[in-house]
Amino acid sequence: MIPEHTSEVLDTLDPDLAARLRFALEIDSLKFVLRRNSITDGSRRENSGEHSWHLALMALVLAPYSAEPVDLGRVVEMLLVHDLVEIDAGDTFVYDTEALAQKEDLERVAADRLFGLIPGDEGPRLRAAWDEYEGAATPEARYAHSIDRIAPLLLNHANHGELWHEYQLTSDRVLTMNAPIEQGSPDLWLAAQAILRDAIQNGWLAE
Amino acid sequence: MIPEHTSEVLDTLDPDLAARLRFALEIDSLKFVLRRNSITDGSRRENSGEHSWHLALMALVLAPYSAEPVDLGRVVEMLLVHDLVEIDAGDTFVYDTEALAQKEDLERVAADRLFGLIPGDEGPRLRAAWDEYEGAATPEARYAHSIDRIAPLLLNHANHGELWHEYQLTSDRVLTMNAPIEQGSPDLWLAAQAILRDAIQNGWLAE
Repeated sequence: MIPEHTSEVLDTLDPDLAARLRFALEIDSLKFVLRRNSITDGSRRENSGEHSWHLALMALVLAPYSAEPVDLGRVVEMLLVHDLVEIDAGDTFVYDTEALAQKEDLERVAADRLFGLIPGDEGPRLRAAWDEYEGAATPEARYAHSIDRIAPLLLNHANHGELWHEYQLTSDRVLTMNAPIEQGSPDLWLAAQAILRDAIQNGWLAE
Repeated sequence: MIPEHTSEVLDTLDPDLAARLRFALEIDSLKFVLRRNSITDGSRRENSGEHSWHLALMALVLAPYSAEPVDLGRVVEMLLVHDLVEIDAGDTFVYDTEALAQKEDLERVAADRLFGLIPGDEGPRLRAAWDEYEGAATPEARYAHSIDRIAPLLLNHANHGELWHEYQLTSDRVLTMNAPIEQGSPDLWLAAQAILRDAIQNGWLAE
């Protein structure tokens, strides 16, 4: 969302720089997009902007646990842009199979619009990072997906499974949904299973 | 903040991996740290987690406007960790000169604790990124600082200078505070001046 009065000031600048600053304001809206899970203390839902920061930094810190050698800079770029399309398409809950069916088209249109706002080489470069993440076919993308899945598991466990309970999720669904963690990081998959087992034992996740 | 029950599950894992996941939970607290400025629609104050995401992505998009050639991956790493110390030390308002005097010691202690949580090479590497950002003596750090200053200017303009008004800031103070933008990016400094001139003309920033 770019306020009219700020857009007008940007119009007085060099058009290439103005377009990039307009993009900077536009993506501020990712901070309004709420995810289903809460932050650690359960006080409020997490937004997709802070979630993206969290994943990017986790990817740097967990780097030794990637299944394959990866270009970490590329992983971080992917994680910084992976949720941008939610500005137009909203956050789709991974367990909402009906919404997921429509998600792909909506997100591609959103990607066309949002990455299309960036002039020069940076637009295509970041769009390619998003496409690569979506494709999940490279070591970088697989590792990035593992980070994107382990982070909410940690937060959901910290919150005594509030989200699993709210959406009446059972352990088989949660395990199936998170199994791709193994492809990006077998060690993180072991950790995820330990976390989920403990949640089941505590009654926070139904068997 | 690491909930006891999640900490206990992590204790059952390999100690190196457990330490990294503990760090991941610990830094979730940056999402609780509120900055003085609001997000674009003025609905709430920005937190330092989403702010860090915003800067990292802006740095990628504005890369051609860095004053000097930079290692962008390093710039992004710096921006992802630049505010982490606020988890312990809180956000210090850049115009609060009294608080700024104490800030340095508090933040160094916080950096020792937080980066000290990360085992292996990644702890020293990210600590060095934070030190480099603080030192502001490399092209990467100077460019990162420019991004950190232009972002709130954009948001404050979008919000009709709400923050400048609230803290009764005058244009000379705001210009002096933001002048270092020029060292990292002369073009962004021109943009910042245009934004501030417009704010003065609109009566959102007192002369």
